[in-house]
Amino acid sequence: MAGNTFGHLFSVTSFGESHGPAIGGVIDGCPPGLAIDEAMLQRELDRRRPGTSRHVTQRKEPDTVEILSGVFEGRTTGTPIGLLIRNQDQRSRDYDKIKSVYRPNHADYAYDQKYGFRDYRGGGRSSARETAVRVAAGAVARAYLREQLGIVVRACVTAIGTRSLPIEDWSAVDQNPFFCAAPNQVDALEADLIQLRRDGDSVGAVLQVEATGMLPGLGEPVFDRLDADLAKAMMGINAVKGVEVGDGFAAASQRGSEHRDVLSPDGFGSNHSGGVAGGISTGQDLVLRVAFKPTSSIIIPGETITRSGESTEMRTTGRHDPCVGIRAVPIVEAMMALVLMDHWMRHRAQNADVTPPSPRIPAQR
Amino acid sequence: MAGNTFGHLFSVTSFGESHGPAIGGVIDGCPPGLAIDEAMLQRELDRRRPGTSRHVTQRKEPDTVEILSGVFEGRTTGTPIGLLIRNQDQRSRDYDKIKSVYRPNHADYAYDQKYGFRDYRGGGRSSARETAVRVAAGAVARAYLREQLGIVVRACVTAIGTRSLPIEDWSAVDQNPFFCAAPNQVDALEADLIQLRRDGDSVGAVLQVEATGMLPGLGEPVFDRLDADLAKAMMGINAVKGVEVGDGFAAASQRGSEHRDVLSPDGFGSNHSGGVAGGISTGQDLVLRVAFKPTSSIIIPGETITRSGESTEMRTTGRHDPCVGIRAVPIVEAMMALVLMDHWMRHRAQNADVTPPSPRIPAQR
Amino acid sequence: MAGNTFGHLFSVTSFGESHGPAIGGVIDGCPPGLAIDEAMLQRELDRRRPGTSRHVTQRKEPDTVEILSGVFEGRTTGTPIGLLIRNQDQRSRDYDKIKSVYRPNHADYAYDQKYGFRDYRGGGRSSARETAVRVAAGAVARAYLREQLGIVVRACVTAIGTRSLPIEDWSAVDQNPFFCAAPNQVDALEADLIQLRRDGDSVGAVLQVEATGMLPGLGEPVFDRLDADLAKAMMGINAVKGVEVGDGFAAASQRGSEHRDVLSPDGFGSNHSGGVAGGISTGQDLVLRVAFKPTSSIIIPGETITRSGESTEMRTTGRHDPCVGIRAVPIVEAMMALVLMDHWMRHRAQNADVTPPSPRIPAQR
Amino acid sequence: MAGNTFGHLFSVTSFGESHGPAIGGVIDGCPPGLAIDEAMLQRELDRRRPGTSRHVTQRKEPDTVEILSGVFEGRTTGTPIGLLIRNQDQRSRDYDKIKSVYRPNHADYAYDQKYGFRDYRGGGRSSARETAVRVAAGAVARAYLREQLGIVVRACVTAIGTRSLPIEDWSAVDQNPFFCAAPNQVDALEADLIQLRRDGDSVGAVLQVEATGMLPGLGEPVFDRLDADLAKAMMGINAVKGVEVGDGFAAASQRGSEHRDVLSPDGFGSNHSGGVAGGISTGQDLVLRVAFKPTSSIIIPGETITRSGESTEMRTTGRHDPCVGIRAVPIVEAMMALVLMDHWMRHRAQNADVTPPSPRIPAQR
Repeated sequence: MAGNTFGHLFSVTSFGESHGPAIGGVIDGCPPGLAIDEAMLQRELDRRRPGTSRHVTQRKEPDTVEILSGVFEGRTTGTPIGLLIRNQDQRSRDYDKIKSVYRPNHADYAYDQKYGFRDYRGGGRSSARETAVRVAAGAVARAYLREQLGIVVRACVTAIGTRSLPIEDWSAVDQNPFFCAAPNQVDALEADLIQLRRDGDSVGAVLQVEATGMLPGLGEPVFDRLDADLAKAMMGINAVKGVEVGDGFAAASQRGSEHRDVLSPDGFGSNHSGGVAGGISTGQDLVLRVAFKPTSSIIIPGETITRSGESTEMRTTGRHDPCVGIRAVPIVEAMMALVLMDHWMRHRAQNADVTPPSPRIPAQR
Repeated sequence: MAGNTFGHLFSVTSFGESHGPAIGGVIDGCPPGLAIDEAMLQRELDRRRPGTSRHVTQRKEPDTVEILSGVFEGRTTGTPIGLLIRNQDQRSRDYDKIKSVYRPNHADYAYDQKYGFRDYRGGGRSSARETAVRVAAGAVARAYLREQLGIVVRACVTAIGTRSLPIEDWSAVDQNPFFCAAPNQVDALEADLIQLRRDGDSVGAVLQVEATGMLPGLGEPVFDRLDADLAKAMMGINAVKGVEVGDGFAAASQRGSEHRDVLSPDGFGSNHSGGVAGGISTGQDLVLRVAFKPTSSIIIPGETITRSGESTEMRTTGRHDPCVGIRAVPIVEAMMALVLMDHWMRHRAQNADVTPPSPRIPAQR
Repeated sequence: MAGNTFGHLFSVTSFGESHGPAIGGVIDGCPPGLAIDEAMLQRELDRRRPGTSRHVTQRKEPDTVEILSGVFEGRTTGTPIGLLIRNQDQRSRDYDKIKSVYRPNHADYAYDQKYGFRDYRGGGRSSARETAVRVAAGAVARAYLREQLGIVVRACVTAIGTRSLPIEDWSAVDQNPFFCAAPNQVDALEADLIQLRRDGDSVGAVLQVEATGMLPGLGEPVFDRLDADLAKAMMGINAVKGVEVGDGFAAASQRGSEHRDVLSPDGFGSNHSGGVAGGISTGQDLVLRVAFKPTSSIIIPGETITRSGESTEMRTTGRHDPCVGIRAVPIVEAMMALVLMDHWMRHRAQNADVTPPSPRIPAQR
Repeated sequence: MAGNTFGHLFSVTSFGESHGPAIGGVIDGCPPGLAIDEAMLQRELDRRRPGTSRHVTQRKEPDTVEILSGVFEGRTTGTPIGLLIRNQDQRSRDYDKIKSVYRPNHADYAYDQKYGFRDYRGGGRSSARETAVRVAAGAVARAYLREQLGIVVRACVTAIGTRSLPIEDWSAVDQNPFFCAAPNQVDALEADLIQLRRDGDSVGAVLQVEATGMLPGLGEPVFDRLDADLAKAMMGINAVKGVEVGDGFAAASQRGSEHRDVLSPDGFGSNHSGGVAGGISTGQDLVLRVAFKPTSSIIIPGETITRSGESTEMRTTGRHDPCVGIRAVPIVEAMMALVLMDHWMRHRAQNADVTPPSPRIPAQR
């Protein structure tokens, strides 16, 4: 309830600062019997790890995850799963100069107003480093969704700055440093990012995240709709400023006759809705888009104030991502998986006795 | 936990179907001593009431709210506030023909897959009628925010279909049937809507919702960020497909040097962030935009299936809004107020001992 | 979260003061398809209704319950069930004299310290009248438990004051005004109660509450153990001061060899545990005992203070139960049913995939 | 929601099995600015540590706690506090023989029925080892209660088996291996325990736990009453079978004129209520008693069944406490502190604006 737990029946409670001894978390409610090991979690963590290409932060963090409980003889037991990731590259000396200055567009001022206190070592709790815990927890949810329900979650980058990256080939996503599905844009992106680094600036991005093989019936109206919980999950990721489901903002300028997804025994005629109606999944693919703002830490100096309210100027140095959206692909996937897993459990808690009355139609004809 | 409660410390639990005996709700956690009466709630309800102009549904519902508990001698007592709104215009006979057919783009199919059951009387629980309860509860939250904290929440329609409605004059919003702040667009909108009705079609809309006079410090990272909970609140309103905070999707194509809100002792230099940093309010105005899809119920026939899976065609008649976004202004205001109230209480629960260390800077210079 | 919601997946949110317009509640999370009507709820309400014998309060309240939502064509739909009970016998004039005096052993002083406010009309929210909502909600849970799982909940009074009432005949419980299972104690009890009324005094009671036909596996260690949630449910009833499970306090003076319930293929050898091990139901009968203090409202004058802190004397007149435990039988049953229903749903949310590995043994050999 | 989180605003989420790599937890919601270090937590942990006298289990566990986050420069920051205690004395080979047998009166059978799975290494999650996390978290709550509010929590053993241990001298509690306040019973207890060990048997105990310096106003009726949440907290401790507040079960045989605590400007006249009225603290000392059953693990053989349902006999060897109640003193203290801290935060969330109208009377005259 103090904001560090996500989910109700399948929940993850997260702790840790970027430059403290460790980050970690507790997954509670995982069904027993699921095959899980550290290598599975590590694979997902490695995808968001810093230092994997020259277009992301060069901070060195192996991000090695340890499972402390809840798994016995290779399977989950139904008891809470403790996760631990020790911080290695702490270098807290780097941060002495920001101790009494609020970095512009960072959470520094807001945190200090809230808590009267600020762990100034690299953003402390407000650092995106904490999302590693979400990725590890998401890996457990993804394993269940895939193995028990056949639901697959995937994401890619669809825009970096003003460059659009159409989804041409999902298999390309893990083959390029930008996690995009537009392989022939990769060279141009390389050039963009090199120029950006020269300018000492940063840029925003858009990601698309989807679930295929969906079940109908997930979502708890009227408030805990599936799309509402997904919107919260995405907007709760560092740097996110917008979320849309299906046609999203484009739907606002459409007419009803254009927007609707007609139904036939062979499936839905289209997927303008993005897979949700009345807050409940329809069985269509779940489709969201998420907007990331440009990284706040840039070399170009900016006007700001000190902790005692005096005017000063700030120039962030250090090892920062020029585009935080790039490393966010495993994070949006993890958050979607956590939402789906929780809603699956909520759904079956109430509706396990139900036999739906009619043939289930395909996702799309 | 079954989805009909919103909020944690200031919560509203909602019940009721569009064509059952009543809708209503319970507000729990309201601070004692707040001056409240039925007239205050009624004023807000009247703003979203059907039948107030020819551009909204002509269903006749007085929407009279009764306070059943929690208020004594004109003030809240700290105990739960029971709210009741009897349904008047039930006409359930109108709905017989949709009993065994899934209306396209409605929640009918998804509800039936979930519960194995469907209250086919006008959408039942999935009807937007339920939002009246949110508006009534929001009126209580708004009273507290305004009187105790000086926070004012307001919203307007900024686009209907392809027509943009710039915010020129907030005082105009309640003076025109479209709740827009662009008085000289009203005639053009009248014409748009008349044509739309002739076409038997519907259209989407965009709303902007803001809070001014904000406090810094509201929001509970890492998951229950203020922007995340606002995104959930907005995406949880019927027909919403997109939410953005501050620059929103536009931020994705900006550079860091362009997006950042610099700080000076005289205030923030801009408000690209929309009033939130790291998930915590900064004291800047809170600014969100919300996209509504076009109304699903239109006269133009659409392909669909019956409950037994056979192909058929559906043409929705009846008294429907051609643009559901129009009547949503009090709803988005109510949801923002509910989120702020809950976060205020969560904030002070943990941080009531805190003295923020530095001068609080103005919302904007 | 402000204390008026009980349960997580099957929850009841309660509102209402003893002398306001109405009391009521919202059941959220009820599985769809359950046959429910107002008569079923009314039958349970009638068991706790005032004025049914001369040994309980003579306040006249028909306690007629209305179902406002969530039931369609005689079955639950899975949406929230709104319940309404109008107050009839409000007589708030009776309470003018207690307006500025704290009745001894009542909640008056504590409420005023908490809220700075007190609805002095008959205890307001602290009145046991609110338990009618629990009884109505419990009736829904009991219907599900009985029909879907074969679990039956029952309770009786096992002591009134110093008189022990052994459980001899469960079928006698609803046949005597004391809800006891000791038919040949009824005459003696009549005499006790008449004497008590002459003395202007009140007396405490002990109740036993059980569930038979139990499933093993209910309970969520380490904190939300079945026995822990039952203890909370019982201690949360007005006037309760003690709860014990199985042998309870007697277990403290037992030896391990005496207390343990051995297992054989034919069943457990005894039921010292009261049906719970490690916080999880074993399949044995669930057995609790609950201690009720004597009614606080008595005619014998008592020393107290006024709202401004001056010494005074108070003599409670009016229509009060001489032994609040007597009418509590349907309340303890309702609370046990609510706990079991919630835990059943929590259990299957996580463990619906599980096949227990071994033969289930009988409750007792 | 899967049972491993306790508390709402000040919460602790616990993980870990007795013979896995570690146990630990996350405290969320701790107010910022509180002085905390590992030594403070360690002091409390040392009180419940095994092997400190010959009357408790001889398992060797240093129980060294590490704070992983949420504390910076010696003070809490308001972010989650990660706690880690590595298991040292795992010896899982000891447990091979119980792999396929359900130990009588243990949670083995119930766990297996619930999860279809059992971590048979020493009870796994059902081991009382997990309570170390509660003690560490309780130490944080106790520090806040003592320093910010002047509330002190304390407990002692008041009966072991049939031997009553009157509260004569609170200062003696930490000076004898039985945590009792009856110094001249210590020799007799030594003799009792030696005989018990010779018999290969175990025995139950009663503990009393109190809070002095209480504030009035804590507790959230109607369901989350202070006494109800305390009952849950206590009944949720391993081996607890009964809880009573104030006079408890004795109140059931009292008359109203005897039970009531009269009020005067000089304080309450008595404390039959145990410090709670209507579920809200009165300012009187909070007084509870908790009954612990005898340890289940005894040398005397007992009838039981195997995992495949066959009859067998079980004789628990190993290093077990002959009376689990003895080491439970810091646990009941921790649980009371956790409840009080959470209720303090819930209370001020809603009521921070309130000025109680009347002079606050002393705890007792």
